[in-house]
Amino acid sequence: MKSSILSVGTELLFGQITNTNTVYLSQQLNLLGFDVLSHHTVGDNSHRLAHMIELSFLDCDLIITTGGLGPTQDDLTKEIACQVLQDELVPHQASMEKLESYFKKLNRAMTENNWKQGYFPSRATVFPNDVGTAPGFALEKDGKIIICLPGPPREMKYVFESQVKPFLEKKTESVIYYRMLRMFGIGESMLETKLLDLIDGQTDPTLATYAKEGECSVRIASKRASLEEAKTAVDQMIKLVEDRVGEYIFSRDDEDLYQVVGQKLMERGISVSSAESCTGGLFAQTLTEIPGISSVFDRALVTYSNRAKIEELSVNPDTLEKYGAVSENTAIEMAEGLKKVSGSRLCISVTGIAGPDGATEDKPVGLVYICAILDDTMVCKKSIMRNVNRSWNRNYAMLSMLDVINRLLDGRPQIE
Amino acid sequence: MKSSILSVGTELLFGQITNTNTVYLSQQLNLLGFDVLSHHTVGDNSHRLAHMIELSFLDCDLIITTGGLGPTQDDLTKEIACQVLQDELVPHQASMEKLESYFKKLNRAMTENNWKQGYFPSRATVFPNDVGTAPGFALEKDGKIIICLPGPPREMKYVFESQVKPFLEKKTESVIYYRMLRMFGIGESMLETKLLDLIDGQTDPTLATYAKEGECSVRIASKRASLEEAKTAVDQMIKLVEDRVGEYIFSRDDEDLYQVVGQKLMERGISVSSAESCTGGLFAQTLTEIPGISSVFDRALVTYSNRAKIEELSVNPDTLEKYGAVSENTAIEMAEGLKKVSGSRLCISVTGIAGPDGATEDKPVGLVYICAILDDTMVCKKSIMRNVNRSWNRNYAMLSMLDVINRLLDGRPQIE
Repeated sequence: MKSSILSVGTELLFGQITNTNTVYLSQQLNLLGFDVLSHHTVGDNSHRLAHMIELSFLDCDLIITTGGLGPTQDDLTKEIACQVLQDELVPHQASMEKLESYFKKLNRAMTENNWKQGYFPSRATVFPNDVGTAPGFALEKDGKIIICLPGPPREMKYVFESQVKPFLEKKTESVIYYRMLRMFGIGESMLETKLLDLIDGQTDPTLATYAKEGECSVRIASKRASLEEAKTAVDQMIKLVEDRVGEYIFSRDDEDLYQVVGQKLMERGISVSSAESCTGGLFAQTLTEIPGISSVFDRALVTYSNRAKIEELSVNPDTLEKYGAVSENTAIEMAEGLKKVSGSRLCISVTGIAGPDGATEDKPVGLVYICAILDDTMVCKKSIMRNVNRSWNRNYAMLSMLDVINRLLDGRPQIE
Repeated sequence: MKSSILSVGTELLFGQITNTNTVYLSQQLNLLGFDVLSHHTVGDNSHRLAHMIELSFLDCDLIITTGGLGPTQDDLTKEIACQVLQDELVPHQASMEKLESYFKKLNRAMTENNWKQGYFPSRATVFPNDVGTAPGFALEKDGKIIICLPGPPREMKYVFESQVKPFLEKKTESVIYYRMLRMFGIGESMLETKLLDLIDGQTDPTLATYAKEGECSVRIASKRASLEEAKTAVDQMIKLVEDRVGEYIFSRDDEDLYQVVGQKLMERGISVSSAESCTGGLFAQTLTEIPGISSVFDRALVTYSNRAKIEELSVNPDTLEKYGAVSENTAIEMAEGLKKVSGSRLCISVTGIAGPDGATEDKPVGLVYICAILDDTMVCKKSIMRNVNRSWNRNYAMLSMLDVINRLLDGRPQIE
């Protein structure tokens, strides 16, 4: 089935936000076996929106729109979808009730425009939105389908994953099965080089590599008549990929590294604390994104100043003086000091130079020392990242901490 | 002048890359005073590319394309631009020579298709590309202009900045000026309600409201004959907006709240530390995104467990027992304990329920207590967020901490 993605929002035309919704939806539609013929963006303008929908339906059977479902006057997508596919907006009982109870719970008065979000085309399949106030919906006519989703990426993804995906799966005949292998410690160019013959020779399963913020992934997908066939093909290819780059893989199910590590810590009941300098609390913040992590996470001491390192972690002032705050010795004393105050079974420390300033002749921006103590085992790691920018460097340092822990928990060797 | 941006490349339709070119070009065109009516993306398909150019010229006078200028067979943009604007490709002497010397320097033989990049429409204005092999060009006919730029962002930006911008500046007569007011503590519906008559009555300046993760913004833009006129119009409108919602504005220059707060702390040399529970270090991590913040940021004690609160911050076990970890009393003792150990002039604490679990009958998910001590002044704030999800709740708690500090530093009243 041929499809098109239509983004609605004047802020996109001003270049105020990057259109990540379209990237996500393109990936998802391709995985589901839909051809994506085009992307379009129009502003909050009823005439151009209607025109674009009509044009896209000339060569596509499916249009997915994002944006323009909010409560305000310039949110027009629902109205225009109705106009083009000849339907009318009517109150949708379940959505109305949800809106009402939502505002009641907040103890906030509903403004007139809030009610708008409870109206839907009379023939629509409504997709409830549990993470925001704008539900999505699908509207069909004469074999043409328009699916309208909210604009905020988090809400759009929620509605797509939970409801649009199953809805669309029924519209296609072949089955797509895929696995996403996530890796840390290998760059995308090296990854592609190692897999080049597999990628070049591909028809089905297909392999695609992705890079994001210090990580790499390989998506292995197969489109077959049955799920079983597709699964078998994908699993065989996974084995070939593992033979080449298995040591870097931390997830075969598209999990984030912090989720993998957090899950292991919770399952084994290993208490954990962190002593952070250059990451400024990013490790703790990331790990505590996991609901229920309080069962094992005890504390983080973000000792940004030297004084804090001495006072909170008993780092020896002579060590700071002689080796500097960014040194293996300091990292070790931070982890040992943390062990003493927290008593956590797993204690991890990090100290480094996030940049853009702070480099010295022998200590470049991107230099990081990590020390992890798990019960009686201590691991230290020095890493020199390619210096991209402060935010990237900090993120990479945090990922390195998680990678060190993950290998320690698995009893696997650390990477260089 | 009305314009449209057209991206060419099948990889975009697969969702393999994010379209950042369009964001950049939208910003640039708007700044130059062009209206951007739409964005489009098509694959490497001559029929659809030609069709899209023809369609866009129905309501636009300027089209900027990116991509499809490479040496391979599926690079079609030049050919199609010629076809639509009735011209033919001819060798472009300077480009031919540059290509030849480029390959000579690399000591690489030129393949047949490499020569393709030296051909241009006979009437084209060619824009040399000093950072790649594909130059850009402009082609005009009957008042319609198409500008074709290379796809790689670095090359596209180079050609645009160095040559397209001066080319376009000669084509416009008006100037756009805009300011972005950022706000915290007011929802988008409420904001629009308060500004409705200004938004409805708008011709110039225009007002647009935006919402993202607990924040709101208003963009005020004016398009006039001179920059001075546009500035005056925008400044007058800012005053009207301030009269209605001034108390929520934290930036008039599109800065993030953490940047505003961090800047003030650094300028005034106020040392700062945080004691965090539900945010898990997010406050510290966000503030330490700022380069140079180490001049004032001392430490963060992320006391996730009750034991950590007692050991690190001397919170009284009886307080935790009697009022609970999520209580005003605990927040106060956390801030006071932090003051004692860090000696920082500004100490801020936070304790709350981030969810999804952990709620009790009288303490819902989203309940947060914040306590800030600046020298001798103490402020406590209880806030009940609408519970979106764990990540949103934590982010909102962090923004609330920054808002409390910002008002404390300004000597402005706290919001309810």
